[in-house]
Amino acid sequence: MRKVYLDHSATTPVRPEVLEAMLPYLKDRFGNASSIHSFGREAKVALEESREKVAEILGATPSEVYFTSGGTESDNLAIKGVAFASRNKGRHVITSQIEHHAVLESCGFLAKEGFEITYLPVDSFGLIDPEDLRKALRDDTVLVSIMHANNEVGTIQPIEELSQAAKEKGIYFHTDAVQSLGKLPIDVSKLAVDLISMSGHKIYGPKGVGAIYIRKGTRITPWAHGGHHERSRRAGTENVPGIVGFTRALELLNAEMEDHKRHTGNLAQTLYRKLVDTIPDVVMHGHPQKRIPNILSLSFKGVEGESVILSLDLKGVAVASGSACTSGTLEPSHVLSAMKVAPDIAQGALRFSFGRDNTMDDVDYVAGLLPEIIQRLRSISPLYVKE
Amino acid sequence: MRKVYLDHSATTPVRPEVLEAMLPYLKDRFGNASSIHSFGREAKVALEESREKVAEILGATPSEVYFTSGGTESDNLAIKGVAFASRNKGRHVITSQIEHHAVLESCGFLAKEGFEITYLPVDSFGLIDPEDLRKALRDDTVLVSIMHANNEVGTIQPIEELSQAAKEKGIYFHTDAVQSLGKLPIDVSKLAVDLISMSGHKIYGPKGVGAIYIRKGTRITPWAHGGHHERSRRAGTENVPGIVGFTRALELLNAEMEDHKRHTGNLAQTLYRKLVDTIPDVVMHGHPQKRIPNILSLSFKGVEGESVILSLDLKGVAVASGSACTSGTLEPSHVLSAMKVAPDIAQGALRFSFGRDNTMDDVDYVAGLLPEIIQRLRSISPLYVKE
Repeated sequence: MRKVYLDHSATTPVRPEVLEAMLPYLKDRFGNASSIHSFGREAKVALEESREKVAEILGATPSEVYFTSGGTESDNLAIKGVAFASRNKGRHVITSQIEHHAVLESCGFLAKEGFEITYLPVDSFGLIDPEDLRKALRDDTVLVSIMHANNEVGTIQPIEELSQAAKEKGIYFHTDAVQSLGKLPIDVSKLAVDLISMSGHKIYGPKGVGAIYIRKGTRITPWAHGGHHERSRRAGTENVPGIVGFTRALELLNAEMEDHKRHTGNLAQTLYRKLVDTIPDVVMHGHPQKRIPNILSLSFKGVEGESVILSLDLKGVAVASGSACTSGTLEPSHVLSAMKVAPDIAQGALRFSFGRDNTMDDVDYVAGLLPEIIQRLRSISPLYVKE
Repeated sequence: MRKVYLDHSATTPVRPEVLEAMLPYLKDRFGNASSIHSFGREAKVALEESREKVAEILGATPSEVYFTSGGTESDNLAIKGVAFASRNKGRHVITSQIEHHAVLESCGFLAKEGFEITYLPVDSFGLIDPEDLRKALRDDTVLVSIMHANNEVGTIQPIEELSQAAKEKGIYFHTDAVQSLGKLPIDVSKLAVDLISMSGHKIYGPKGVGAIYIRKGTRITPWAHGGHHERSRRAGTENVPGIVGFTRALELLNAEMEDHKRHTGNLAQTLYRKLVDTIPDVVMHGHPQKRIPNILSLSFKGVEGESVILSLDLKGVAVASGSACTSGTLEPSHVLSAMKVAPDIAQGALRFSFGRDNTMDDVDYVAGLLPEIIQRLRSISPLYVKE
């Protein structure tokens, strides 16, 4: 059966060049980077070369780049680490209503530890108003955490303006750049942020590895305690094969950024046009322009997203529901709720996320399947009344 | 140049069967185990099959096995997670003076959070007296954490007796089994522990992956917050290739446990005999019998361990100093200090740790090199006076 993978925001295949870069470290070059003998030094060289390459791409210094087990660990370290380190200064943290669960749940943990959390609202496009952030900043605010691009609808936040507001008050600013890494330019000076979370498996790199940028001088409590790895900020034997793979994946995607944007954006736009031409009552979520172009979030009025996913799955097509719901419950997405999307529309949300291997044939295939699927589901739906 | 790797307690090469098991998940089977489409389900099946296999080896149920990024994360989760969850019951934690840094530093973090930590002493073999534990237990003790086998000298603790003492008082017991996994039988009923830390890269599996056993009913606060992965106890997209590799490595080593023990023990004992026959003033550390047999910790009086490592490294031989010192400082090992080894002897400690690929030729090669190296270093050492 034909397989069409349109869920690149959930995870991506490791590209062959990345696996090739990793293999030597999964075979002969297996040393522990903390060992002082030749096996260890070989691993250490690979580790530090990776750090330099990532730093260069971000416009950072190598000593500001730390490798982690992924985006979730980076988010946890950024939020809890900075908050704990500044507890005596203040216990107020600002984030948004549409963050990834790794950010929201880390903030939830802080709330139990006596912190107060402000969740900034978004408009119907998913955008945060910098004025809202300015008003929320207080004398006891120690951290602002706002994502770069949203993982469900793709909306890109005005990070420079937002971080500027925090900077004026001397407050640390963290951004989860898991979805934007390699897809938008990320320069630490231009964005003027203090911490950035990154993940390998969203950029055609391996799972189980990520990174965090921590601006020099940032006060942060380690969250993984142990040996002196990563300059005592992240303990644990370094996953050198994973780190080499992450770095190669970032280098490659970063170099292809414009092509990737054009290619995936073209596919997403073509699919959208084909669908609105053939299916009535299609609603697009997110911002029409301020969006990472590979994500297309749509609702088909009167149908459940889950039902569409399963129907497409039977035809070999992989898409996600708009909700990041991973537990099998059918709660509407917190992102779409924050964007004031009506619950019945939000429940119908589907996320198509394109990648470098997708083709126009994939678009044609999916565009050919959906009209019949939607029509069938609507015909048995008590919710659908054609407008 | 000939290469002889005798640092398997630091890390091991990934064995070919393990890499072979991982490769499909680094290639076509790249789905996110939280996705509900076919790519996701394929990953989920691999994940849950891995969990079942690990559970079976431990005599646990699959729902008691959680995958992590490695031994350090498992130690952090066990110690901080259990302590935080029981904060209202009490703030006393008991561990030992010879634990891995991931345990000691996690306890150090707890101390800053208002916990009191008792560090149990060890005898000159590195053994903890269960009577000392009994005396240290208090009404406000919430956790005991004592390692299974020590990473520097290999001493095996009487875990069953120790955990029994905690169990009688209803106190949680954690053991770091990173060095003993696959080398000693680990049955959760027999050991009667509540939490066990495991690591992949010490058992010929990949770096960046490990596991933790958490007995059903154990109260524990998650330490990595985010999505509902690992039944909400460890957030982050599951590293399926790593988890499959970890599991395959554990299955293989577990099945070969007796052979591995005999083979590595034979090599270690032969090297020891050859060295004491040819070099005067050799001191062995650790317990002569109660020891994982692949670790041989020795001091050559009057010489610095670091100098021996570098001399051997020039000949292609990789060994470690007794100290787990990874920061380049020359502090004597906290393990040997706790064992009351004199500082000048402790500074000379070397750890030879054998693995499945080592041969008797390797032993002969190293036994042939060391007499000259030690003699040369002693001849220039102000410390060495032949007894």
